[in-house]
Amino acid sequence: MLSLDKVFNAQTVLKSIIRETKLVRAYGIAPECELYLKPENLQITGSFKVRGSAYKIAMLSDEEKERGVVACSAGNHAQGVALAATKNGIHSLICLPDTAPISKVEATKGYGAEVCLVAGCYDDAYQKALELRDSQGYTFVHPFDDENVIAGQGTIALEILNDLDNIDAIVVPIGGGGLISGIAYTVKQIRPSIKVYGVQVNGAPSMYNSIKNNQIECLPSVQTIADGIAVKQPGENTFKLISEYVDDIVLVSDDEVSSAILALIEKQKMIAEGAGATAVAAVLAKKLPVEGKRVVCLVSGGNIDVTSLSRVIDRGLLNSGRSSSLLIELIDKPGQLKDIARIIADCGGNVTGVHYEKGNTESVNGCFLRMEMETRDFEHVRQITESLRSEGFKIV
Amino acid sequence: MLSLDKVFNAQTVLKSIIRETKLVRAYGIAPECELYLKPENLQITGSFKVRGSAYKIAMLSDEEKERGVVACSAGNHAQGVALAATKNGIHSLICLPDTAPISKVEATKGYGAEVCLVAGCYDDAYQKALELRDSQGYTFVHPFDDENVIAGQGTIALEILNDLDNIDAIVVPIGGGGLISGIAYTVKQIRPSIKVYGVQVNGAPSMYNSIKNNQIECLPSVQTIADGIAVKQPGENTFKLISEYVDDIVLVSDDEVSSAILALIEKQKMIAEGAGATAVAAVLAKKLPVEGKRVVCLVSGGNIDVTSLSRVIDRGLLNSGRSSSLLIELIDKPGQLKDIARIIADCGGNVTGVHYEKGNTESVNGCFLRMEMETRDFEHVRQITESLRSEGFKIV
Repeated sequence: MLSLDKVFNAQTVLKSIIRETKLVRAYGIAPECELYLKPENLQITGSFKVRGSAYKIAMLSDEEKERGVVACSAGNHAQGVALAATKNGIHSLICLPDTAPISKVEATKGYGAEVCLVAGCYDDAYQKALELRDSQGYTFVHPFDDENVIAGQGTIALEILNDLDNIDAIVVPIGGGGLISGIAYTVKQIRPSIKVYGVQVNGAPSMYNSIKNNQIECLPSVQTIADGIAVKQPGENTFKLISEYVDDIVLVSDDEVSSAILALIEKQKMIAEGAGATAVAAVLAKKLPVEGKRVVCLVSGGNIDVTSLSRVIDRGLLNSGRSSSLLIELIDKPGQLKDIARIIADCGGNVTGVHYEKGNTESVNGCFLRMEMETRDFEHVRQITESLRSEGFKIV
Repeated sequence: MLSLDKVFNAQTVLKSIIRETKLVRAYGIAPECELYLKPENLQITGSFKVRGSAYKIAMLSDEEKERGVVACSAGNHAQGVALAATKNGIHSLICLPDTAPISKVEATKGYGAEVCLVAGCYDDAYQKALELRDSQGYTFVHPFDDENVIAGQGTIALEILNDLDNIDAIVVPIGGGGLISGIAYTVKQIRPSIKVYGVQVNGAPSMYNSIKNNQIECLPSVQTIADGIAVKQPGENTFKLISEYVDDIVLVSDDEVSSAILALIEKQKMIAEGAGATAVAAVLAKKLPVEGKRVVCLVSGGNIDVTSLSRVIDRGLLNSGRSSSLLIELIDKPGQLKDIARIIADCGGNVTGVHYEKGNTESVNGCFLRMEMETRDFEHVRQITESLRSEGFKIV
């Protein structure tokens, strides 16, 4: 059984392993409320996950410790278990799908784990881990549906309550539900007036659906940039705890998550992964009744592949009109590029790419010109488009 | 005259305006030393600059305050002066070159300053600011060559010494030299055994040259991604203080700075601007004798334009072999793209772009195919190249 005693005990046990992350007052991201961030992206291993797995592992019996632990994960849980096992001097074996980014595989090895790459997806790695548990006697460390794991995540709530008074609401990403279960349980025991809201993404609304329909439901597939919370099926313990202690769950889109990642970079100089930015995304996109309130958003992790980060930034720039691309239909005659370049330059746009493309133009001698530009905002793009049109160019 | 008293006084005066940034232990960036970061990118306004300008402004006489302040800057100093003036309830006028990124102009206005956009570059804005000082009676707030500004920056040293014992070395970016002057002066009064190293970039080595030749020298031009330290001429005060108190100055390249920015993102989930990453770059590129030492690197600011950030990440990925581009010469016959795509996929490369280009191929019917890919590292690129060659493809 989960109890407040367990959460306090976890706090003591974790003291030597984790960092106590301090709340950060975030100005400028969401001026309509008083926003604080709990930056678990700055936690050791780059995610909160280490709290739960380290407490779980510390509570194993000596005999279980001797047999070692097995876990499966596509990312943050792997690193948490690896570090926690190594710190406790025990062996860990982590099953990862062979599609996992090389950086996460290397990081997991770096924390001292043995890595077993499994052909296929997360579910295949999960099956392999269970198989190894049964055949080799390892203890399985579940990523979320375990009371000690949940108690470990609950220590985040103790830190928040210790750090700041008069909080109105805490907003927490939901994947399997371990993080929010620990936080909501703890908060509601100590300060039941604080609202606890959960956030999932449109592409993986397993807990959202399950709570709405009042039974655990399994999604056939999940697809989102917030890979850390792309979970098909809620846990049994987490479903119960969330049903009882969480005030509401809302959904955000991948584009809203991208904008939140960008806002955290620009305003807070902070890297969040997709899952880590969902709580901020929910506030930014005004999905929650928090206007004028003192709100804490969990930034649950920062382990985003730089390749993905680069794509998210590009997408965020496009979504805010700061980069844009115009397709212009041309009659193939000399001097057109010169005129277009002049018009864009006069409007203050910065050309970053030029491509000629053949295509189904009106004239047989026509072609398309794609101009990529850095711009200030959508209004700026509109100005450029108007100027081009007023000189007779046809924007497709 | 600069004095330790002034630095301590600045610390008291600044308490209500600035954040005390806590040292962060950085694992994994430079395993050969015990590296700590002083994250002034997380300072309010995103840079240390606010310390110096806020102390300078607080020390003005009532009459000077009434007349208001003028400053010129391409970025961080502008925001620092604007915020400090507003907090002191006085008027500020900031001259910015009209080439300054829109985001910095908006941020400066957001802190309550009046902004005067000046056609041209930083030097033109500087002249305009002096003109306004003389004609309108404003007090000019110099970005670095002023003892109160330097005393304000010195408060960083007090925080570092209070936060951590047994430091061997502190590494600090140098532009005009205000930051390192304040830190070196303070450190050498209190713990003279600590080494203080300065870092400049190859494209703007004004202080480096001046110290080497023992006289203030002016560069004809500067060019670097570290725009925050692209200063043509050192200050007189800062030149003297650095001559006396700084142990050595080293240079880093723009590519080394890019790699440092990327390392801070990946390992610390932290955004640094170019100038802000130079100290880490110097340690990463082994330009300093700090092996086995306890080292503090100043991360002086985080105000990098996301468009630039996107370019830096792309460049960092290229420099580490994690993105790559192959130019393959083809005979124009069907099925070639299919074979190439298969070979790359079998090697685990992820194609992100395909372009056919005409060009001076051996055969008249030939063309070039440019394949852009996500790869693991240079060894991976080499494997793919070898596989393509072994099936008869010609890599240019």
